[in-house]
Amino acid sequence: MISFNNDYSEGCNPKILEALTKTNLESTVGYGEDEYTNKAINRIKELVNDQNVFVHLMVGGTITNLTVISGLRPYEAVISCDTGHINVHETGAIEATGHKVIAVKNELAKLTPELISEVMFNHTDYHMVKPKMVYISNSTEYGTIYTKAELIKLREVCDQYGLYLYMDGARIASALTSKGNDLDLATINKLCDAFYLGGTKNGLLFGEALVIRNEEMQPDFKFLVKQHGGLLAKGRLLGVQFYEALKDDLFFEMGKHANEMANLIRDNLKSLGIKEYMPSVTNQIFIEVSNALALAIHNEVICDDFISFKDTRVIRFVTSFATKLEDVLELNKIMHKFFRK
Amino acid sequence: MISFNNDYSEGCNPKILEALTKTNLESTVGYGEDEYTNKAINRIKELVNDQNVFVHLMVGGTITNLTVISGLRPYEAVISCDTGHINVHETGAIEATGHKVIAVKNELAKLTPELISEVMFNHTDYHMVKPKMVYISNSTEYGTIYTKAELIKLREVCDQYGLYLYMDGARIASALTSKGNDLDLATINKLCDAFYLGGTKNGLLFGEALVIRNEEMQPDFKFLVKQHGGLLAKGRLLGVQFYEALKDDLFFEMGKHANEMANLIRDNLKSLGIKEYMPSVTNQIFIEVSNALALAIHNEVICDDFISFKDTRVIRFVTSFATKLEDVLELNKIMHKFFRK
Amino acid sequence: MISFNNDYSEGCNPKILEALTKTNLESTVGYGEDEYTNKAINRIKELVNDQNVFVHLMVGGTITNLTVISGLRPYEAVISCDTGHINVHETGAIEATGHKVIAVKNELAKLTPELISEVMFNHTDYHMVKPKMVYISNSTEYGTIYTKAELIKLREVCDQYGLYLYMDGARIASALTSKGNDLDLATINKLCDAFYLGGTKNGLLFGEALVIRNEEMQPDFKFLVKQHGGLLAKGRLLGVQFYEALKDDLFFEMGKHANEMANLIRDNLKSLGIKEYMPSVTNQIFIEVSNALALAIHNEVICDDFISFKDTRVIRFVTSFATKLEDVLELNKIMHKFFRK
Amino acid sequence: MISFNNDYSEGCNPKILEALTKTNLESTVGYGEDEYTNKAINRIKELVNDQNVFVHLMVGGTITNLTVISGLRPYEAVISCDTGHINVHETGAIEATGHKVIAVKNELAKLTPELISEVMFNHTDYHMVKPKMVYISNSTEYGTIYTKAELIKLREVCDQYGLYLYMDGARIASALTSKGNDLDLATINKLCDAFYLGGTKNGLLFGEALVIRNEEMQPDFKFLVKQHGGLLAKGRLLGVQFYEALKDDLFFEMGKHANEMANLIRDNLKSLGIKEYMPSVTNQIFIEVSNALALAIHNEVICDDFISFKDTRVIRFVTSFATKLEDVLELNKIMHKFFRK
Repeated sequence: MISFNNDYSEGCNPKILEALTKTNLESTVGYGEDEYTNKAINRIKELVNDQNVFVHLMVGGTITNLTVISGLRPYEAVISCDTGHINVHETGAIEATGHKVIAVKNELAKLTPELISEVMFNHTDYHMVKPKMVYISNSTEYGTIYTKAELIKLREVCDQYGLYLYMDGARIASALTSKGNDLDLATINKLCDAFYLGGTKNGLLFGEALVIRNEEMQPDFKFLVKQHGGLLAKGRLLGVQFYEALKDDLFFEMGKHANEMANLIRDNLKSLGIKEYMPSVTNQIFIEVSNALALAIHNEVICDDFISFKDTRVIRFVTSFATKLEDVLELNKIMHKFFRK
Repeated sequence: MISFNNDYSEGCNPKILEALTKTNLESTVGYGEDEYTNKAINRIKELVNDQNVFVHLMVGGTITNLTVISGLRPYEAVISCDTGHINVHETGAIEATGHKVIAVKNELAKLTPELISEVMFNHTDYHMVKPKMVYISNSTEYGTIYTKAELIKLREVCDQYGLYLYMDGARIASALTSKGNDLDLATINKLCDAFYLGGTKNGLLFGEALVIRNEEMQPDFKFLVKQHGGLLAKGRLLGVQFYEALKDDLFFEMGKHANEMANLIRDNLKSLGIKEYMPSVTNQIFIEVSNALALAIHNEVICDDFISFKDTRVIRFVTSFATKLEDVLELNKIMHKFFRK
Repeated sequence: MISFNNDYSEGCNPKILEALTKTNLESTVGYGEDEYTNKAINRIKELVNDQNVFVHLMVGGTITNLTVISGLRPYEAVISCDTGHINVHETGAIEATGHKVIAVKNELAKLTPELISEVMFNHTDYHMVKPKMVYISNSTEYGTIYTKAELIKLREVCDQYGLYLYMDGARIASALTSKGNDLDLATINKLCDAFYLGGTKNGLLFGEALVIRNEEMQPDFKFLVKQHGGLLAKGRLLGVQFYEALKDDLFFEMGKHANEMANLIRDNLKSLGIKEYMPSVTNQIFIEVSNALALAIHNEVICDDFISFKDTRVIRFVTSFATKLEDVLELNKIMHKFFRK
Repeated sequence: MISFNNDYSEGCNPKILEALTKTNLESTVGYGEDEYTNKAINRIKELVNDQNVFVHLMVGGTITNLTVISGLRPYEAVISCDTGHINVHETGAIEATGHKVIAVKNELAKLTPELISEVMFNHTDYHMVKPKMVYISNSTEYGTIYTKAELIKLREVCDQYGLYLYMDGARIASALTSKGNDLDLATINKLCDAFYLGGTKNGLLFGEALVIRNEEMQPDFKFLVKQHGGLLAKGRLLGVQFYEALKDDLFFEMGKHANEMANLIRDNLKSLGIKEYMPSVTNQIFIEVSNALALAIHNEVICDDFISFKDTRVIRFVTSFATKLEDVLELNKIMHKFFRK
């Protein structure tokens, strides 16, 4: 059965695996102090156009988020969309490090200066947590993206209130190669205090490259990584993968391929008169269907029930670096069958 | 200037202080293992009509809440009104013990079976926290109360989903002596897994009597208390106070007095055509006024800005065991001055 | 039966209770922002001869220790004697805030520059915790005290390694009035980054006055207090007590009385040829006796088995502000009975 | 320069990489619910001869330890050798989950029933943590191993006191193929409540297979894994690797090779009259040398300074699945040069 379940169903891009194979029996030092990791880090500094960033290659997304946030003072809190990954899908990982997630209702899975200002207005004294970080993801949990103008405004409101701006980039490759995007890594780095380039959901075996621009957040970061169990002994595995992905355009080509496949699905749905649940422009597509229809679709396509309401569900199709055109065409046919009038 | 700022502005009921004075130089064992604490505990067992409850006399409300909740497994979460004390006014104390507070929008500052069921419906697997406890307060943060029928229904939904029901009773004396109340301690004990009788806000110097009925939550509880720094060396201070308050009717008389004073304010507001912000029946009264009016009122009455909106504020008048009739009459006059048409 | 069980068996000095009684029905603001707390804080600033310290009146010793230490960065650790209160008698309270206690074997329950240097020598990189605070108590867990010369040397080694020096002063009144002491509050304040004046074990109902000199440790401290449930609603209770104890010499008179009573016991033991287990000069006396003898003594005196070995136990006699001369004489007689040859 | 720095300097055994390559573009479900993970789990159940164990494939050693221990109740503590990995080399990871490590002085980096009994004897009430788990590693931090008789006795003392026995098996392959070993996986599983088979230090790219026999520790374990950020999206990477290593004898062959290489070094040292610092029988060799000699050796061999004393250091040579005979011979020559008399 064809699967559009997620973007981490396959291993990795064959080029990544080749790079791992080629270097496999070389002996290097551990914990990310090897030359491959150094090369990856230098390449990232080049891409973000900033030699002073601190870069650490992390094992996965949740541990990246919780490690970054764990560096806050104990009573400092993170503002997030209520739909944010840290608020919903990390089993309380942030709270387990002691920090409150202030969850904010929103539209389009995006935060705005107004929403942040409102939180700040309501947090007035030491009987409440002190909001200190804004967590956004790009692309968001619902496939929408931030524009440069929006990110500039978020930066401004963060500066006004002394907040860190942190971007979860689990799907940043798809975001930065999507229709309507006007951001790039250097701009993101300039506007955010920290962000990460997601590898797990973009063709690497695993790994996320965390970039910390704000010097306040840099000191002793490897202590935090190790304390949370996130320091890979064979750190070079991450170095080799990220260097291979980033030395040329592979990282973004993979994001672009995922988007192209998604757009084919998107166009087909549009032609069938189906409105997406969210105006995603990236590699995730959401549609709301009746429970009965969801079950019927699950019989022919592996895909996720992303939200369940009483009578309906929002199902999700995800494309990736590995999505094959023939599977997309098959999905489009199936959609046609279910939805033509 | 008259003050209706809160119910912990004064020391304690003189009878409480007399009891402390009378026993002051007696030598007892520490940490709540003394005879006064035992007497208080036995009296509470009598009042809740249950010899198998575990009772511990705690120092304050926040540490009671965080200690109880800290006993959950790490990934277990607490469902609370978004207005709940643990969600807003405890500086992230619950999260600091590692647990997520699942904040629920609601009416009247109260949870309902429907709201709880919805949370359970949306928490489906190990990528999310596991809701395990329902936190309510009685009276609530906005002075409303739970009826017996409502509490029975909450118990049912908790049983259905395997949830603990925990009642914050910081203002339980006011709740149980208010108009419309049909609950008593024995019923609350039967329907809740744990709850506490608040002393701090009801005429004691400090102290809350925690009652744990559910035997799953009882073992090793004093380890949790000590670990969080909540074990009072001179535990007998709490024993003496609670025994004095509970041996006769003093505890409830104080709650009743606070309510009577509040009702005089309430009736006056009503006669002036002012609608309360929340239909409180207990010792807190909320009214929404313009920012300008709030400032004017603050010039004549000490009271709290409970919520701040852009143009208006919800101010709060609180009565207590110590509220004097003459102050109430003075407040009523002031209200009359500001609000008569 | 006479009791030398601990220094928190009684309520408080009658003068303290009088002060509480006199102010009982005054209305003040909460959370330690009242005038009595301000007066106590100002008096403490006077006593430590430093207007820039941050003072907060805390509820108890364990919560003071854990709140102070909770302000460290997550991977920072505290160096303590293995006999230290935080290492042994706080049910893992420090670890519950996420921080490791590095326990150091020692003599006389005291840390030395050499012991601290050795810890620093062995903590070399991000695979280990980063020692950041030195925890000492004065008097120590075994009744010994630090001299000025010793404290100066500890300060030097702390400066060398960038460590905070924090003194647990649960029994500081006894320490500063003991034979051989050459420290005072102003000197302690100058040499330590933070310390506290213990009230619970020195004639107050409860309460410890925390003094933070180091400005790095001051910001947002009340957030930490509240987050751990340590913010007393009726904060003025602490203000009234500490002001009463400190406005004249009451605080130190109580410590002195405890020492005088202890010295009578000490002299008697010496005359009987019994060597104390530790060379205490303060209000705790330790002697090692056989298990059988310990049981016999417990039949006539309430006192604590402080350490248990296989065949022997170290029992402890503690005096306090409330210890009566007649009880001391009675104890001395009993000791005479057991130990005369 | 030849390197005996550690057993995680290289990637993985080529057979492991082949297995990853062969399955790379297959589409599987995530989070360890795929068929490869299932096959690995089933193979492990076979090897431990127990169908009721819970097995989860973890990303690394520290996160395995902290996740297992995080499941204890908050005030429960872990008894460990003071040399234990969790006590020294995990940057306070265990404490960061709230739990105290009770560090015990010992010989040979091993715990004994006597040492455990002593801890239990001294932990008597709720003022102290409650010891609940015994942490051992096999092979130990110093390359020594536990015999079956020793493990049986540890089991007995754990049963006596209601303690869990948890074995860190980061180097279990080397332990179980070493001279003098009489344990196997089935016996270890029967005697321990939980243990893990280390992959990172035994020829896998990364990964540790955690086996939980005790049913009390099994429920909701995946919540704990996810909460700590340890749930690998592409869980099949671990499944493929462990199945490949365990389906035949590869896992133990790699351990055996490491031991054989170590024994060649060991025999050479012995012939030179050098006594090992610890009587290791596995893939780590420790010798104490002067600081000057250590520096000289570092000029010719990459190896670790494991302990630093004032004038001497304990240096460590580690072999692995990837150690080449020619490098061993070269090391032996170098040792000969430095140590022949």
